Amino acid sequence: MTVGSGTVSFQTVRETNLGVVLRTVRALAPCSRAAVASATGLNKTTVSSLVADLMARGLVLETGETSRQRVGRPGVLLALDDSSVAAVGLEVNVDYLSVVAVDLLRDELVSRHVAFDARSAGPEACARRIADTLRETVGAPELSGRAVVGVGVAVPGLIDAPAGTVTHAPNLGWRDVPLRDRVAGLLRGSGVVDVPVQVDNDANLAVTAEYRVGSFAGTPDLTYVTGEVGIGAGILAGGELLRGAGGFAGEVGHLALAPDGPACACGRRGCLEALAGIGAIVRGAVPDRVPDRALSGSDVAELVAVTVERAGSGDRVAVGALERAGAWLGRGLATLVNVTNPSVVVLGGYFVPMGPWLLPHCRAEIAANVFAPGAGGCRIELSALGLSAAARGGAAAMIHALDGGLLPLPAPRAAGVAEVPGDA
Amino acid sequence: MTVGSGTVSFQTVRETNLGVVLRTVRALAPCSRAAVASATGLNKTTVSSLVADLMARGLVLETGETSRQRVGRPGVLLALDDSSVAAVGLEVNVDYLSVVAVDLLRDELVSRHVAFDARSAGPEACARRIADTLRETVGAPELSGRAVVGVGVAVPGLIDAPAGTVTHAPNLGWRDVPLRDRVAGLLRGSGVVDVPVQVDNDANLAVTAEYRVGSFAGTPDLTYVTGEVGIGAGILAGGELLRGAGGFAGEVGHLALAPDGPACACGRRGCLEALAGIGAIVRGAVPDRVPDRALSGSDVAELVAVTVERAGSGDRVAVGALERAGAWLGRGLATLVNVTNPSVVVLGGYFVPMGPWLLPHCRAEIAANVFAPGAGGCRIELSALGLSAAARGGAAAMIHALDGGLLPLPAPRAAGVAEVPGDA
Repeated sequence: MTVGSGTVSFQTVRETNLGVVLRTVRALAPCSRAAVASATGLNKTTVSSLVADLMARGLVLETGETSRQRVGRPGVLLALDDSSVAAVGLEVNVDYLSVVAVDLLRDELVSRHVAFDARSAGPEACARRIADTLRETVGAPELSGRAVVGVGVAVPGLIDAPAGTVTHAPNLGWRDVPLRDRVAGLLRGSGVVDVPVQVDNDANLAVTAEYRVGSFAGTPDLTYVTGEVGIGAGILAGGELLRGAGGFAGEVGHLALAPDGPACACGRRGCLEALAGIGAIVRGAVPDRVPDRALSGSDVAELVAVTVERAGSGDRVAVGALERAGAWLGRGLATLVNVTNPSVVVLGGYFVPMGPWLLPHCRAEIAANVFAPGAGGCRIELSALGLSAAARGGAAAMIHALDGGLLPLPAPRAAGVAEVPGDA
Repeated sequence: MTVGSGTVSFQTVRETNLGVVLRTVRALAPCSRAAVASATGLNKTTVSSLVADLMARGLVLETGETSRQRVGRPGVLLALDDSSVAAVGLEVNVDYLSVVAVDLLRDELVSRHVAFDARSAGPEACARRIADTLRETVGAPELSGRAVVGVGVAVPGLIDAPAGTVTHAPNLGWRDVPLRDRVAGLLRGSGVVDVPVQVDNDANLAVTAEYRVGSFAGTPDLTYVTGEVGIGAGILAGGELLRGAGGFAGEVGHLALAPDGPACACGRRGCLEALAGIGAIVRGAVPDRVPDRALSGSDVAELVAVTVERAGSGDRVAVGALERAGAWLGRGLATLVNVTNPSVVVLGGYFVPMGPWLLPHCRAEIAANVFAPGAGGCRIELSALGLSAAARGGAAAMIHALDGGLLPLPAPRAAGVAEVPGDA
């Protein structure tokens, strides 16, 4: 899986090789320099020089242990240094901002989730709020002393990732918003310089998180379905993100399921998200609590909580609305499964707390409508990553880009880059 | 793109390297041995030995020309030898058998298309007819003196390609038919020995043909949609076949479009192929000519011809049926485009002669129902490969497997394998 962005695409042979060594240490740690040389085909002198460089940049360290497995001189063992760098992911959605920072091992350093009415704010105020949140995160005590290698921003909608532009996000009311450049400009203006920013689709980043750190990590044919006001799918096929020719794959929220159905934010009728998106669900489940205006940021989380509470106490209106939505979701996902045949579809976001009522009807419709026997072997499961999946994925994608030599490495912390300790 | 089969998966380092040299000569021809060494990173002595081996097997030849571009000794130029081997593809469909043989350059040597009522015949008689047809093809004068490297068989339905089994082909009425082993056994029994047989989905092989030799050859995000009694899609994403976790991707024929629609061969109602498959179209277009029984092999081609003739003379019933089918096809393909975002969808089979009436309504529904602007840049076009696309693809897949070192190479024709002419 690659971060499909031209944002930061310079790459020299040495940077490529630094990435190769970094990935190899990640895969084999703890491991000796000799093991890295053997696995990569690079010669030992080159490996020692590259390791020294990575150590100076705070990415690799010596564990203090030595290898005694092999004949010959024992080698000092290497591992990733999880103390020096951080990557940040941020999701902006209709009703919240979610931000996560991780270390080089993708362990979480910071996670924050705040209600935020992105639709009312509009793109300019939203870009400012994103930049403010990123600045606070980069300056947070948990990140003290760390170099931030990059920021991945997740947005629900059609994204031109190479350009960093939001082409169309109907639930936010955005068209052609050059979000990456605006956020990067605001960060520079506030003194946060040299931090690469990338923008991608929320579902693409969420499936990246599931593949890296979720309950189904490593599953090559994995699909993540966002459960927000909008519905989108991030699709991995053979471990690779299915982006499509224009980067617009996975737009399951606008599958036309009911020509005479309710109006959708996209201007059509009866789209999947108009039938089974969170807005549609709460309108059906707790109609007495839904305000007579567009739902604001803080409304959504509260209405979801009330829906889950009432369904839990057996309220027939709430349960009926959830079951109908589960069935529509199953109809939509059956289409996805007929076309792409994943082994697992992970439902995320607000679908998770609603899962107990959604899943039985969803699974029944999939079983009935997928042509391959047994739904082609596909399981429908709930995400364990909650509302931070896309933000986690934004951060994970930056770590993956660093491993791939696609991001600038942090500067050496001392002048000793050329030193090759105890070797040469 | 790989032939996803474990049928013939032995591979030594030398076989891998023979494949590497074969692919390199294909890409660079005419080219010198030095150019092959430079492009592959193999040393010149190894390349000379591998080239000698490929020449002895009739896969590579010296063109007689020499390279004068570079300094140093002029090199004799190499090219593929298109005279020694053949690959065969055969499609069995509801109403016909189609067989194609190609040479190493994928140029067509033989192409035959015969009406055949595969559904009435049943799997055993069908396997016999397939084996007979293959035996005749292998023995045809056009293939005289050629080694047949393999046979690719295309079947409309769910295929377990590694096992060579047809899991479910509703339009043929087949379930769990071990077609590869049966056909291979019949071939051996009739004296055609040592010819590997692979079985794959018709749409997967047709898109392989489009990618290799069709009007949109080389398009990485390309989808082919079969236009037979059934409808299936072969999907290339980034130049790789999207097979899904179980090999069941692309089953667009059974997308549920109209819950109260006509009965489908799969047992459900209102599937895409029950609304826009060729059987559905001719029943609507030329109802007076459709027999009061299941359509036989020869019926379909004739009814398609009458439909096209009447539509061409302005018959309102025929035109109306085609336009309605085109609109349903567009609804179904909009779903496919929302999920996978291809740059071109090629309509094949009987959709081609019906294209003038199907396309306008098909394109209009796609434009209306795809969420990304301008249908995500997707074009809907007609195949130029006619009813032989899947058979062409079956043959092309075997040539691709040969290039990849995944098939046994033909035996050396002389004892001179170890000779390295004018080199060493």
